Amino acid sequence: MSKFEEKTTRSERIYEGKIINLKVDEVLLPNGHSSKRELVEHPGAVALVALTAENKLILVEQYRKALERSIIEIPAGKIEKGEDPAYTAMRELEEETGYTADKLELIQSFSTSPGFADEVIHVYAAIGLKKSESGAVLDEDEFVELMEVTIDEAEDMMKDNRIYDAKTAFAVLWAKQKLLNENSTYPKL
Amino acid sequence: MSKFEEKTTRSERIYEGKIINLKVDEVLLPNGHSSKRELVEHPGAVALVALTAENKLILVEQYRKALERSIIEIPAGKIEKGEDPAYTAMRELEEETGYTADKLELIQSFSTSPGFADEVIHVYAAIGLKKSESGAVLDEDEFVELMEVTIDEAEDMMKDNRIYDAKTAFAVLWAKQKLLNENSTYPKL
Repeated sequence: MSKFEEKTTRSERIYEGKIINLKVDEVLLPNGHSSKRELVEHPGAVALVALTAENKLILVEQYRKALERSIIEIPAGKIEKGEDPAYTAMRELEEETGYTADKLELIQSFSTSPGFADEVIHVYAAIGLKKSESGAVLDEDEFVELMEVTIDEAEDMMKDNRIYDAKTAFAVLWAKQKLLNENSTYPKL
Repeated sequence: MSKFEEKTTRSERIYEGKIINLKVDEVLLPNGHSSKRELVEHPGAVALVALTAENKLILVEQYRKALERSIIEIPAGKIEKGEDPAYTAMRELEEETGYTADKLELIQSFSTSPGFADEVIHVYAAIGLKKSESGAVLDEDEFVELMEVTIDEAEDMMKDNRIYDAKTAFAVLWAKQKLLNENSTYPKL
């Protein structure tokens, strides 16, 4: 969709980093005026809604420097160069949680901050979870605490902001709807 | 929560912009190793889940330069310096949609990209919508198309990625659960 398209008339690269780049584009608006857009480039990420056989949601707590606090999130990871997102998701699931899945189903892809970043997260449902023999395999510089919680517990974590990011908030609502559909005689949502 | 805290040992400011800033921090990890964090500062934003009396969701289509396409989102806006988020939300609702609300209820606050940005979005439910006399009041450089859609239509928009951002995906699931709770004899979700 290109409604209200903004044409780039100049692009200045400000920073090329390990994970993100920053550029400032000058754009031509539909009314002929000029404006500036500060834009972050990010390789994209995957995230996993992983429910155990006991209908518990697998979550990870980690420190987020941008927020200067630790938060509790669904397992996720950056897409490495050339990787297919579904492959990244399977790899992250195994490395970060020590579970494998029979298959992954894409729930939704979405931009996290369309106002200033091109980051897109692909959220997958992990189907047929099994504990791997190796368990979680973290880099030596990766600090993550695994947990498995009920949907009620996850909702409590949203209420008191221990869960505090968009993809995980989406995942908790999605998992709740899924379990309600499966475990009731109500019409499908 | 400060589990696995990363202490800043150096901070370099790379860019100070109109909307975002970029800094690169050197941090000390829990194991004593050093690492770098590329961090975007953003003033934060608000977004609104606004359901009309006909249970239609108010959405706006706009061009997002970061994605080089237009997408359909719930009404949202940046928090101006010193503004209370609830005030920003009421202002954005009126300016962007031409509706006023009797009151706003905070549904959830969340970080959009905790890996590299401090942006937090506060998502409000707009209660008691009324059309204002003035209608939407946009800046001359703001190009937005308003629409009102059923939840089914919004779900179709998620499926084909016309809706393509995290806050709106969250909002659609939330609105669906709310309407199911209100319009049925099923036990509350």
